[in-house]
Amino acid sequence: MQNPSRGDGENFRIRRLEIADKSKGFLQLLSQLTVCGAVSDEEFKERFEEVAKYGDDHVICVIEDVRLGKIVATGSVFVERKFIRSCGKAGHIEDVVVDSSVRGLQLGKRVVEYLVNHACSVGCYKVILDCTEDNKPFYEKCGFMKKAVQMVKYFV
Amino acid sequence: MQNPSRGDGENFRIRRLEIADKSKGFLQLLSQLTVCGAVSDEEFKERFEEVAKYGDDHVICVIEDVRLGKIVATGSVFVERKFIRSCGKAGHIEDVVVDSSVRGLQLGKRVVEYLVNHACSVGCYKVILDCTEDNKPFYEKCGFMKKAVQMVKYFV
Repeated sequence: MQNPSRGDGENFRIRRLEIADKSKGFLQLLSQLTVCGAVSDEEFKERFEEVAKYGDDHVICVIEDVRLGKIVATGSVFVERKFIRSCGKAGHIEDVVVDSSVRGLQLGKRVVEYLVNHACSVGCYKVILDCTEDNKPFYEKCGFMKKAVQMVKYFV
Repeated sequence: MQNPSRGDGENFRIRRLEIADKSKGFLQLLSQLTVCGAVSDEEFKERFEEVAKYGDDHVICVIEDVRLGKIVATGSVFVERKFIRSCGKAGHIEDVVVDSSVRGLQLGKRVVEYLVNHACSVGCYKVILDCTEDNKPFYEKCGFMKKAVQMVKYFV
């Protein structure tokens, strides 16, 4: 695949995930982030529908390179309903990744802005995410600031 | 209120949040964590039902001091459905707090164990949370390890 030259931003369309995106490299893109594993068409459809059931409470956005019919960036946000903050809502951004062939074109920033705007539009009082120290400067450019440390416990 | 003496653990019952817990000090407990704000009975019921609609995907647990009819600890976990990790699920622990009058009785640990066990039982491959540096040792005792940094953007 050729590296797209800079300045062809009009070829990149940002929108919500669709079922057809499985055949446009959505999972191959995610595998640049972490272990993705084999997913059958049936499993993909089932998970897609589970997420879709949450409506605006769980949005996965993608950027498609429409010239190539290929998904080149993605990220998700889900909305947690709390009792604190006068029954406030918090947005959680997860699984942001940009295809290695199109880095440097601000596509990651467009994904994060899309997710942040969604969280804001549904009334969240904040949006949070976890990232490596290396990615901290990127999120600072997106308007985030460091708040706390992320802890994890793996079951498998 | 008297501080309960150590060793009276049998007075503390752990269970899921119920609507009646509003009158048992649930919101006063949350206000020890962060800004809670005024919440009417109607607003409480509405938020309770929104969360309940998610079933095992969003569980709020409480510990009640049954002697006093008072909620003295709480925490929540919600389950995010992903495409990575062979359509895996991740548990997110939020809003853990123990009443200042009963700290040191391991109630926080019981809450976290309850939430971790729930995430595990519904098939999550990991459970994550964000905390201050000060609370890191507590979560390490609960089996967590530091993974990344939490970033935040506030809208209000």
